[in-house]
Amino acid sequence: AMDGARPPTSPTGLSAYVAVSQLLGLTLLATTGAWLGRYRGGVAWHSPLQFNAHPLCMVLGMVFLQGDALLVYRVFRHEAKSSTKALHALLHGLALLIALVGIIAVFESHRTKGIPDMYSLHSWCGMATFVLYLLQWFLGCGFFLFPGASFSLRGWYKTQHIFFGITLFILSITSCLLGITEMLLFKISDSYSHFVPEGILANTLGLLLVAFGLVVGYMLTREEWKRPPLAEELALSMDFKTLTEGESPGGSQ
Amino acid sequence: AMDGARPPTSPTGLSAYVAVSQLLGLTLLATTGAWLGRYRGGVAWHSPLQFNAHPLCMVLGMVFLQGDALLVYRVFRHEAKSSTKALHALLHGLALLIALVGIIAVFESHRTKGIPDMYSLHSWCGMATFVLYLLQWFLGCGFFLFPGASFSLRGWYKTQHIFFGITLFILSITSCLLGITEMLLFKISDSYSHFVPEGILANTLGLLLVAFGLVVGYMLTREEWKRPPLAEELALSMDFKTLTEGESPGGSQ
Repeated sequence: AMDGARPPTSPTGLSAYVAVSQLLGLTLLATTGAWLGRYRGGVAWHSPLQFNAHPLCMVLGMVFLQGDALLVYRVFRHEAKSSTKALHALLHGLALLIALVGIIAVFESHRTKGIPDMYSLHSWCGMATFVLYLLQWFLGCGFFLFPGASFSLRGWYKTQHIFFGITLFILSITSCLLGITEMLLFKISDSYSHFVPEGILANTLGLLLVAFGLVVGYMLTREEWKRPPLAEELALSMDFKTLTEGESPGGSQ
Repeated sequence: AMDGARPPTSPTGLSAYVAVSQLLGLTLLATTGAWLGRYRGGVAWHSPLQFNAHPLCMVLGMVFLQGDALLVYRVFRHEAKSSTKALHALLHGLALLIALVGIIAVFESHRTKGIPDMYSLHSWCGMATFVLYLLQWFLGCGFFLFPGASFSLRGWYKTQHIFFGITLFILSITSCLLGITEMLLFKISDSYSHFVPEGILANTLGLLLVAFGLVVGYMLTREEWKRPPLAEELALSMDFKTLTEGESPGGSQ
């Protein structure tokens, strides 16, 4: 915030949830790394281990970074909206790039090993999620970062953007759980039912993914934790609204 | 509604979404039945086909009925709140009973075949979801159906109840997708990657489950589709609030 007079405070509880979410996020990454490092030979690119880059990139990009991108309006609630928006778009963009690397890893690994692509429910859900996530990112940039869209159009799209944003985050986590199940049944189908450590670890990773989604989802849906508009934004948006009111026919609010 | 004077109308669009949701729900059941009937030998209780009762009961109870239970406040928006509440509790209760039958089916089938229980991510997610769903049902009955809870306590719990209700619905669908993936990799692991019809059908069932969740979730989160309080409820709740205001120290409305 610009004015040093009254230091802005966050709502009670929010900071604790932010801390828990970030701890969970880092635990996710550590658990994924532990699984791949301890039981799956580690991660490398030009090697038979190339496949292992897939789960690591997807958890990092489509879960941790996507989740954190959703949280920026809660965490940086007293910063200028334009900066927060830019950070939101940037984190999603980074998530998309890392996810793309993860997708290339699995396609190249399949090609090397002669495994068909895109036949499983995991691949259908995962690919649909990635493509829609990319689309949502372009739409978000078009509506909110570039000056073309009218105030009423932005208002209408915002509710859609939020709903589909949370939906894509949930679908990303679901796709990860499907991927974990597939990988376990491919790699340790004989021992999985004997409660071997690798199975327990990967199941725990699944539960941690659910827990991360739950905490982020809870933070996003608390009405009282939503970012309040700054005083200057309120004034500006009123001006804007008056200016653009006649612009769109029958525009909602 | 009691007064015949002005026939109550539903918001534009809501009826279409209700129709689509129910069509999707019935398609879900038909697709599950087609998979089990056409490729898995059908469903029977005291037989090697007992396992097949599991997916059928879980899709019917934990997805279709649970989803419809969530929608009653949107669909029966002009009925007395007490009737709608009773229907909400009843549908969830029915969903729980049918899910219990589905869970018994898998445990009995495992016992007959000598397969260990509760080792997979599907079983962990599914069982956690069922137990928490049962807990949520008891809490819902305790807070909202019995007269003990104060007005402010109900108001606080309601936001939690709604969040965890939608969360459990999403977790139920996720558990179904994990179950589909497991079942395909157990039964058709050799042919799944060759795009055999059973694999395509079961993958499609997975996408239909996601679509059902998406439509129901969209309907639940539209602010303008929430059930408006009836005139008499508003008056009553005001009285109630005044009466109970001093009851709970620092209670959030």
